[in-house]
Amino acid sequence: MSRAAPFEVTVLTMFPEAFPGPLGVSLIGTAWREAGLWSLETLDIRGFSKDKRGFLDDTPAGGGPGQVMRADVIASALDSVERRERPLLYMSARGRPLTQARVKEWADGPGLIVLAGRFEGVDQRVLDARGFEEVSVGDAVLAGGEAAALVTIEACVRLVPGVLGQAESLSEESFEDGLLEHPQYTRPRTFEGLEIPQVLLSGHHALVADWRRAERERATRERRPDLWAAWLANQQAKGD
Amino acid sequence: MSRAAPFEVTVLTMFPEAFPGPLGVSLIGTAWREAGLWSLETLDIRGFSKDKRGFLDDTPAGGGPGQVMRADVIASALDSVERRERPLLYMSARGRPLTQARVKEWADGPGLIVLAGRFEGVDQRVLDARGFEEVSVGDAVLAGGEAAALVTIEACVRLVPGVLGQAESLSEESFEDGLLEHPQYTRPRTFEGLEIPQVLLSGHHALVADWRRAERERATRERRPDLWAAWLANQQAKGD
Repeated sequence: MSRAAPFEVTVLTMFPEAFPGPLGVSLIGTAWREAGLWSLETLDIRGFSKDKRGFLDDTPAGGGPGQVMRADVIASALDSVERRERPLLYMSARGRPLTQARVKEWADGPGLIVLAGRFEGVDQRVLDARGFEEVSVGDAVLAGGEAAALVTIEACVRLVPGVLGQAESLSEESFEDGLLEHPQYTRPRTFEGLEIPQVLLSGHHALVADWRRAERERATRERRPDLWAAWLANQQAKGD
Repeated sequence: MSRAAPFEVTVLTMFPEAFPGPLGVSLIGTAWREAGLWSLETLDIRGFSKDKRGFLDDTPAGGGPGQVMRADVIASALDSVERRERPLLYMSARGRPLTQARVKEWADGPGLIVLAGRFEGVDQRVLDARGFEEVSVGDAVLAGGEAAALVTIEACVRLVPGVLGQAESLSEESFEDGLLEHPQYTRPRTFEGLEIPQVLLSGHHALVADWRRAERERATRERRPDLWAAWLANQQAKGD
């Protein structure tokens, strides 16, 4: 094997110091630093300026506020990285929303190359020419792509075999089957006068399962009408 | 004023070392460290264990895999923080999705207290008793709430007056009016044989505006049928 790790992540960013952040802690951090189950490399885009002053950006064609990252700078940075058939992601409010289904596909692959933009965004031509997939994380505007990159990478890396070990469950999770998770309770039995729901203490597995299923449906209906509609359509299709 | 900063953020986490990550860089980092326009405090939940061994979690009531964070531990941690009428957020795949509208409301307030959970989640009773709002960031499962907290905090802090200065535009952004942004282009005029769209070089402001509007509508229709449907309904309501 010439590969350094089973899952290799390269981030193109103007701010390598934003990493590893949450990727450096807990089991994911250990799986990286000690077990070598995945690798994290940051590439400072600022090293690829075409300009004596180190600028990476210029004014938007057609006018408007802010600055746009130059296609040639991003291309030079990207082309300095060994691609190894990894998908190219660009974190962008213009992107398609991150989904668990897509995360699973990426986690099954060789790794990720993630571009974290700044300013008003990146010249569209380099995104088109290199085949970046534009991905959004939450319907909110960020100052840069770094925080969204952390979310996306963490979602993938935790699915890499061995990373979570036996410590966490990968089943019965939100988004796995189209419903949100049920609420959780643990000891103490009474907290500030609030009891754990009786059914969970009954020892009756079928009743527990029924209650949890009903709670998952209720939460999805109330909090995520979009997922609920998709789930209902899916159930109907199964019934046909 | 007894307040330390115009916008005060406290994060409850088992992994304070995951911060500041992207919150420490660029203009947002400067606004925190130098200008004092916002503040970031992390509180290590591990200091609030009720257990000699330092455990924060216990097995789920009703059975099932993994561990659940105890309500009494989270309550003790939270109650050690001066609340100052800040909203309480819990980052959770069960939550309502982060939106720019909600971000704006939070950014107008005194700050945020954000709980980043781990394991299978937090005992629901402390979320209910203290009035945490459950917020999700992207339809993907994370190893913990820290990365989602970074996204949420960054989205808010960039809207705090003075943080971005004149350097970035807050208008014409994705989600501001229900449409995604238009693509951006900048120099050089030709990149690997690809030209900047002619209209953007025309100097004809009305044509540029028309083109950008059409591109925003196209991107929204293709990439975000959910936003597109909401935008159409909104346009129709305006027309009535």
